[in-house]
Order: sequence, then structure tokens, then C-alpha cells
Amino acid sequence: MTETTAEIAPEQACPIAPVVDVVFSRWTTPILWTLNEFGRQRFVELERRITTITPKVLTQRLRRLERDGLVTRTYYPEVPPRVEYEISPLGRSLAPLFAALADWSPKLAEVEEARRIYDAEGKRR
Amino acid sequence: MTETTAEIAPEQACPIAPVVDVVFSRWTTPILWTLNEFGRQRFVELERRITTITPKVLTQRLRRLERDGLVTRTYYPEVPPRVEYEISPLGRSLAPLFAALADWSPKLAEVEEARRIYDAEGKRR
Repeated sequence: MTETTAEIAPEQACPIAPVVDVVFSRWTTPILWTLNEFGRQRFVELERRITTITPKVLTQRLRRLERDGLVTRTYYPEVPPRVEYEISPLGRSLAPLFAALADWSPKLAEVEEARRIYDAEGKRR
Repeated sequence: MTETTAEIAPEQACPIAPVVDVVFSRWTTPILWTLNEFGRQRFVELERRITTITPKVLTQRLRRLERDGLVTRTYYPEVPPRVEYEISPLGRSLAPLFAALADWSPKLAEVEEARRIYDAEGKRR
């Protein structure tokens, strides 16, 4: 069994890789999480909540999330124009996945402990 | 409620971000998935299964996964020396999370459809 699967195509090596690409690209999780948590909001509100993101990157990521159908963008032709962002139903369907991530997060303490031991042992091989 | 949380620290903006960093760093998912699927194996076996990874990057990622306690590395002082990698119990604890990812993967068709529509509409604003 092991040998017959050795020739699998790269993109098949990990069946969850495409999901990871869509959902866990840099910044997508904080943006989706913030939209899910605080509801529909304007660009400046998102920017204020995700304090470490630059406006340029936030614009890029929002556009990508909109293209992927995970975020909806509503344009109000007022003066000045107003734009609001909201997580879409497809984006909300990620909730169980995000919950699974949150469930695992207490294990991070074990990761920290593993690192402490690894670093203390130093280069032992 | 919305306003009081506007000042949260960047690292708290998304509570699952630390998990994403550990679990979904570039290449960690294919490596963990391959170890989980095919069991304990040598470097060359991993390399053969994850065909698009370079030996240098595979070495780096394995070291990081070992440091994080997600992978165990066993050294056999033979001639020539043999080294085997295995997913750790902590790494296996990611199984429900990976399953949640796999469960969501059919939604990728909706992502593709959203992209098709977005691209067809072009720059309309």
C-alpha cells in the first residue's frame, strides 16, 4: 500500500492543503474572526480592531476574501461614499472549523513545553 | 460591547491565530498529514511523498515540528546512520481539527464559483 501511493501528485499529497490555502492565508483568520465577532463594519473599524495590519494589506485581503465569497462588500453611494464589510453565509460555514481550532488551543501549552525542552537540550545529535 | 473591545491587543484580535501559526505554517500540514497517513518513515520517504518540497525546506520544517513536539525523531546509530520520523501523540491530537478541515473542503466548489462570478463581473465599482 505504501509503495503504490508513493507516486501521488503533489497537490494530492495533503487533501486539506487547498482548504488551508483559502482559509489560513496570512491575515484571513483575524479578518474573518473579527467580522464574525463584531458583525458588519466599515474598513476603519476593521483596521482599528486588527491593529497590526496595514491599510494596504487589509485592502488586499478583503478583496481576496470577497473574491472567494467569504466576505460581502456593500457600497453605499452617499457623500462621502460608505463601504461596509460582512462575513457571508459561506464564511460563516467556517464556524465549526474555527471552533475545532479553538478546541485545540489549550494544547499550545504542550507545544511551549516541548520547545522549552528542545531548546534546553540544545544540539545533542 | 463593541467599543470596549476595540482596544484589544493585536495578539488577541484573533484567538485562534497562535494555533494557525503552529499548525498551518507553510508545509506543516502536508508533512503532518503524510506522517499520520503512512506512519513512521525516513527522510527520503517523506521527500518522495511530498514531491514539491526541497530537502532543505523539509529539513527545516521537520526540525520545527520536532521542536514543537508534533513530530518525534529517532536516530539509529548504524552504519550508515538511520533517522526516522513519526507523528507524536500531540501531533495526533490534531486529527479532529484536520477532520474539520476535510469536512469543509466540499465548500471549495462554492469558493471556485464565487471567484468565477467575481472575475466575470470585473471591476464594477
